[in-house]
Amino acid sequence: MSTTRAPRGRRPGAPDTRAAILAAARHRFAANGFARTSVRSVAAEAGVDPALVHHYFGTKDELFLAALELPVDPRKVLLPAVAAGGLDDAAERILRAFLSVWDDPDIQVRLVAAFRSVLDADADGERLLREGFLPVVLGPVGEALGIDRPELRMPLVASQVLGLIMLRYVIAVEPLASLPGDDVVTIYAPTLQRYLTGELP
Amino acid sequence: MSTTRAPRGRRPGAPDTRAAILAAARHRFAANGFARTSVRSVAAEAGVDPALVHHYFGTKDELFLAALELPVDPRKVLLPAVAAGGLDDAAERILRAFLSVWDDPDIQVRLVAAFRSVLDADADGERLLREGFLPVVLGPVGEALGIDRPELRMPLVASQVLGLIMLRYVIAVEPLASLPGDDVVTIYAPTLQRYLTGELP
Repeated sequence: MSTTRAPRGRRPGAPDTRAAILAAARHRFAANGFARTSVRSVAAEAGVDPALVHHYFGTKDELFLAALELPVDPRKVLLPAVAAGGLDDAAERILRAFLSVWDDPDIQVRLVAAFRSVLDADADGERLLREGFLPVVLGPVGEALGIDRPELRMPLVASQVLGLIMLRYVIAVEPLASLPGDDVVTIYAPTLQRYLTGELP
Repeated sequence: MSTTRAPRGRRPGAPDTRAAILAAARHRFAANGFARTSVRSVAAEAGVDPALVHHYFGTKDELFLAALELPVDPRKVLLPAVAAGGLDDAAERILRAFLSVWDDPDIQVRLVAAFRSVLDADADGERLLREGFLPVVLGPVGEALGIDRPELRMPLVASQVLGLIMLRYVIAVEPLASLPGDDVVTIYAPTLQRYLTGELP
């Protein structure tokens, strides 16, 4: 997303309204959490009209993802993969879409940095992950999949994907870090597929 | 382990040798990583004889676990669970042993704190996890299980357990955070069992 490349402050002589809105959004989301932050309050802190926030960023969900400064919009990676086929092999398509960005060396560096900054901060990052990222990203994916009990199944998927991200990319534990993508799919797709469509207690 | 309750500094008038050794161990492991830290160098920094380090803490592995200040020794939780039965249902036993400590409210608070401090530090914590914790803990468990390719299978298990720890305990995402332990076992034991004994690419 080009929105993530904006500079952080206002440039002298060329006030950067987008950057000011993003800075306000980061501050409000971190201070008050996702659920209790309104587009209105972000606009007020940035000193602009709420309509301008919507103009630049769309919905609150989109503003939130922009504020996280992710190098890619996870919904734009995952939703096409979901739509490309049926539910029976959805896990494999989701995993391949996931690997297409995380195994790209340039994107990976920026994703690891974004991931670290979310976890590294104090409890704020965790709250944003819990209240914001998971619902904003997992919600639409679960809905697009059309699965039953998405409120349990999607966090199950997330629990495996998160551990894979940490060991393969962030902590870089061998042999996971160097495992060919096809092997990652062979190993993890059955796990994710069971979480998506298998029996639940 | 009582070793984790030692105060951080030396008490005036009652020099705490154990605490001094632990402080030196934390410093050396963080600065140089697990692999390149010797018991000798820890002893030198603490100003004691290496024999005293061995006397108080045993092997380098044990010194490392003591320095991590975990409220429980993961090997003492996991190894009896492994030994209690056959490989066919080892995953369920391991998971129940895991839950017996993580679902205990008092221990959980201290485990989450220890987990955060490992991740929260800069890259040091990650290096200690990669070079130290995983080999020191997963090595003996993989060996006790007698599985083939433990060097791949144990990190696979770790990738799911780590994600579960993060979502259920650290970030506390619902409904995972409140899921009854039996449901956690029903959901995750088949995954871990496949990683331990299933086909690999």
